[in-house]
Amino acid sequence: MDREDQLIKRVSLRFPFAGDGLRVGIGDDAAILRPRVGSEWVVTTDAFLENVHFLRNIQHPRSVGYKALARATSDIAAMGARPRYFFMTLGLPEACAGTWFDGFLGGLARAARRFGLVLAGGDTTKYPLVTISLTVMGEVDRGQAILRSGARPGDLLCVSGRLGEAELGLRLIQEKLHKQKSWAKLLKKHFYPEPRLALGVWLAGHRAATSKIAASTYATSTYATSTIATSMIDTSDGLSTDLGHICEASGVGAIVWAREIPLARVPVGLTRRGFDPLDMALHGGEDYELLFTVSKKFSSRLPARVGGVPITVIGEMTRAKKVILLGTDGRTTPLQAKGWDPFRKKS
Amino acid sequence: MDREDQLIKRVSLRFPFAGDGLRVGIGDDAAILRPRVGSEWVVTTDAFLENVHFLRNIQHPRSVGYKALARATSDIAAMGARPRYFFMTLGLPEACAGTWFDGFLGGLARAARRFGLVLAGGDTTKYPLVTISLTVMGEVDRGQAILRSGARPGDLLCVSGRLGEAELGLRLIQEKLHKQKSWAKLLKKHFYPEPRLALGVWLAGHRAATSKIAASTYATSTYATSTIATSMIDTSDGLSTDLGHICEASGVGAIVWAREIPLARVPVGLTRRGFDPLDMALHGGEDYELLFTVSKKFSSRLPARVGGVPITVIGEMTRAKKVILLGTDGRTTPLQAKGWDPFRKKS
Repeated sequence: MDREDQLIKRVSLRFPFAGDGLRVGIGDDAAILRPRVGSEWVVTTDAFLENVHFLRNIQHPRSVGYKALARATSDIAAMGARPRYFFMTLGLPEACAGTWFDGFLGGLARAARRFGLVLAGGDTTKYPLVTISLTVMGEVDRGQAILRSGARPGDLLCVSGRLGEAELGLRLIQEKLHKQKSWAKLLKKHFYPEPRLALGVWLAGHRAATSKIAASTYATSTYATSTIATSMIDTSDGLSTDLGHICEASGVGAIVWAREIPLARVPVGLTRRGFDPLDMALHGGEDYELLFTVSKKFSSRLPARVGGVPITVIGEMTRAKKVILLGTDGRTTPLQAKGWDPFRKKS
Repeated sequence: MDREDQLIKRVSLRFPFAGDGLRVGIGDDAAILRPRVGSEWVVTTDAFLENVHFLRNIQHPRSVGYKALARATSDIAAMGARPRYFFMTLGLPEACAGTWFDGFLGGLARAARRFGLVLAGGDTTKYPLVTISLTVMGEVDRGQAILRSGARPGDLLCVSGRLGEAELGLRLIQEKLHKQKSWAKLLKKHFYPEPRLALGVWLAGHRAATSKIAASTYATSTYATSTIATSMIDTSDGLSTDLGHICEASGVGAIVWAREIPLARVPVGLTRRGFDPLDMALHGGEDYELLFTVSKKFSSRLPARVGGVPITVIGEMTRAKKVILLGTDGRTTPLQAKGWDPFRKKS
């Protein structure tokens, strides 16, 4: 047996074939998937690259495998879909083909079980750097996915969990403070982020009553009833950047209330070193929380928590196409997108 | 606008949104696809990596874009499916973000038009090497896909086109002979391979009559009628390796008749240099021809050509689980898999 076959065998052992809707999985030229009647597929693709998204000497291979899949699956959560299958292409250095690969597969398998994903195909190549590309497919009932483009002026802006926690972990690593035991748990969200799948599915599944206008105008449309949530995105690039995407797609603006943002809990020892919780919440990436808008009249139907994850109202959408921050001092300033962009020059 | 957004804009301009079945394309967290009633999805994923699969100083960016998509789409052809959508993650060096990227997108767009594919999503990251990962989705009528696993003893082994042509181009490059004008056209199949989509769809669509046993035993199955082709694979790794995959998946063996193999036409000037057409046909990769088996009783229904591409019978499947070559000298020898494997040490 040749080496690539051996690697595929090791992958197959970790990811047993699961039949539901998957007629052919790993081992043929392509996978064959049978869709459920009345469903749509939600498909996303995401790269996780050594030296850009992670450092091999700092991040445990289990975390590399887990986080690679969590990141991609968060896009499925952000549409309100249920994860089903994933596909992986992997570039793997010769030195990583042994125990590193076992750790990686362990983290990947743990994430797959947790998110309800079945590995349906892949491709492995020897390469100087670990390069992971994942395609994740989810299913959603026809017409129920929540897009970026539905926010309207007056809608409330909501977010799950806390913002800036992943950035806190990243900064600890960047400032070489990550080996201090007392701060070890602050690294968790950076290494093992949690896509908010239960909340996404809850929001896609809870619909407002059909309005009269909608019912008469779009009688044959599947969109005659609207979801409570009018738009949604996951915070992968940071609040300031991701809110900008919702505003651009929806043709609206927003005002964010700084004092309402659920911030990371930063130990005094770190605030003294200049760790600013608000700055991390506004511009730090990789929290993978859900940022969404709800129409005010249905906001009372929004629970305080879904699946144990708190929901906080942090602002309001506006007609003026600007993103404004209402500071804790009561002053308003433009909120500029300063989140993650791999091609931006360091300033 | 930040740099990554600019790259995405350039991609979007080349690949206009096309509505048929694609409800949401580039620009949201994920794409939304609406399946056709009665169809199954065929999904494959494939990496095309600088310095492993191509050299940037030799291969034109147009060819890089074209070939990346042709390779992946060949897996869709090998199942008998019709290509529909594709997704791309791209690692791109800063130096390639200008004219190189335009050439690359041009080749990718040409391939997409030719194969009937719509770009539905992607992700671009700055990276030291050009790393391309593609996921291609096709559709096939329920139960009509042709797998690797259906070959039976006595079936005829068939192949499309000619074998060894891509290897011929690769060897010209390896021996630095590729700049000689008289041999320029010998590089075509290496730079611009052609997935055999029309043949794949023809084979999936042409079914033998229902046999009595099948009809009574599997009355409710969608597989009550069998295709003329009992198994299929594309020759991406070379005949010796890919035939081994069919044999392993089907639990059979094969005998290949050397004198029947449609070989590359090699100029005398190159055979004198040791270019061996049979060796290239047996072990050379990347031809992306279709290798398939047909039951003897239906073989008369197989046309000589489909979509202008010739079909040749080159052997027969056997009960003994070995792959044998019947040489032009009348002697039989085991045919060992010596095709492409990125993890095999050079011998």
